[in-house]
Amino acid sequence: MNKIYVVGIGPGEYEKMTIQATKALESCDVIVGYTVYVDLVKDHFPGKEFLTTPMRRETERCRLAFEQAAAGKTTAMICSGDAGVYGMSGLMLEIGEEFPQVEVEMVSGVTAAVAGAAVLGAPLIHDFAVISLSDLLTPWEKIEKRLLLAAEADFVICLYNPSSKKRHDYLQRACDLMLRSKAEDTVCGTVSQIGRDGEQMRLCTLRELRDLQVDMFTTVFVGNSQTRAVNGHMVTPRGYRV
Amino acid sequence: MNKIYVVGIGPGEYEKMTIQATKALESCDVIVGYTVYVDLVKDHFPGKEFLTTPMRRETERCRLAFEQAAAGKTTAMICSGDAGVYGMSGLMLEIGEEFPQVEVEMVSGVTAAVAGAAVLGAPLIHDFAVISLSDLLTPWEKIEKRLLLAAEADFVICLYNPSSKKRHDYLQRACDLMLRSKAEDTVCGTVSQIGRDGEQMRLCTLRELRDLQVDMFTTVFVGNSQTRAVNGHMVTPRGYRV
Repeated sequence: MNKIYVVGIGPGEYEKMTIQATKALESCDVIVGYTVYVDLVKDHFPGKEFLTTPMRRETERCRLAFEQAAAGKTTAMICSGDAGVYGMSGLMLEIGEEFPQVEVEMVSGVTAAVAGAAVLGAPLIHDFAVISLSDLLTPWEKIEKRLLLAAEADFVICLYNPSSKKRHDYLQRACDLMLRSKAEDTVCGTVSQIGRDGEQMRLCTLRELRDLQVDMFTTVFVGNSQTRAVNGHMVTPRGYRV
Repeated sequence: MNKIYVVGIGPGEYEKMTIQATKALESCDVIVGYTVYVDLVKDHFPGKEFLTTPMRRETERCRLAFEQAAAGKTTAMICSGDAGVYGMSGLMLEIGEEFPQVEVEMVSGVTAAVAGAAVLGAPLIHDFAVISLSDLLTPWEKIEKRLLLAAEADFVICLYNPSSKKRHDYLQRACDLMLRSKAEDTVCGTVSQIGRDGEQMRLCTLRELRDLQVDMFTTVFVGNSQTRAVNGHMVTPRGYRV
């Protein structure tokens, strides 16, 4: 059976990969991915064939991977974080319908919400919502509705893709929407370059977050009404009495 | 410096742990955890001292871990999945304030939402909300509000703790609330015993989910309006054109 693994490599640092992910990659002939992710793992898997396609060529990248597998090479498609959270696993299963001879196996990784939370402390201990601010593939009206309702429901909210060159004011717009239900002093946190060189974290209030400039390598956490700062960490209590 | 690691061991299977988690546990003198989790890792870390406390003794368990670390033993507190998602990392940071001489380090793991999604296919590819149905530590009214608003926002919804002996009808109640905004034929999935012996997955509609009996080792996924069944998998498209 021809085999293709869809592998989440975690936030970046090799040691944050699962053992299963390293074994899957070791078993492969070809590793396919976006250039930046291939560069993160390349040195750890010498002797493999690496194929890359640029950003926004996702469909092409998936087909390339299936063609390798269909030709008899054990293949991996790698994604940062987990392939199932804003990653390629959905598209891989859809394109996989054209390649019934290829077996697809998902290998989980640590997504930015989980890895970033560990850097900040414990912001996600209770119910949370994950929302991407990128409107490349989603109408902004839908994102807006989710921000409003998630804030009204008092979820901890984790924002992916909070900014880009073209969307420099999206985080500000998102904060204004959340501020309709969440208090100005809601504890928030940002983490950039999670698990990579230059990792940085910062705690602030929702009012301060509104005026912060963050880049596309930043994950943003907005607390619920119970979240507090504990000794420099962002902590959402679960309800256990200390 | 005295050191304590708060380690997410992933869903259960040893190979689904991160390399960082295995190294942290190898470096420890003492490993503390709920009995079931200790049993999952015990055989892989021979020669370690293991300390367990029963369920619902969370505060006691955290203090026990800090006392070990304060006495000079490198210590780990283990949780299933990730320690930051309905886990012990928040309580550890709160109790850690009483032990300023002990450094706390979080080590991320693969949480059930991510691991379960990989079994089902790719349900979490787009914005999602994670909600626990346990009202042990949260008033049911709050859970109800979150279910209603998350459904109205068209989130994919992942349910933790969907059932227990005392809460046998909670999943049914949750489905009835979500059915106010989500269609009866919304694609849903359940995964039980993720990454352990007896792992099982099942796809169904939201109407069918309503009448399903699931146990406390099950994680439930309710699709958004775009989620569909692809070749026996649950897939939420991100919007890439195939």
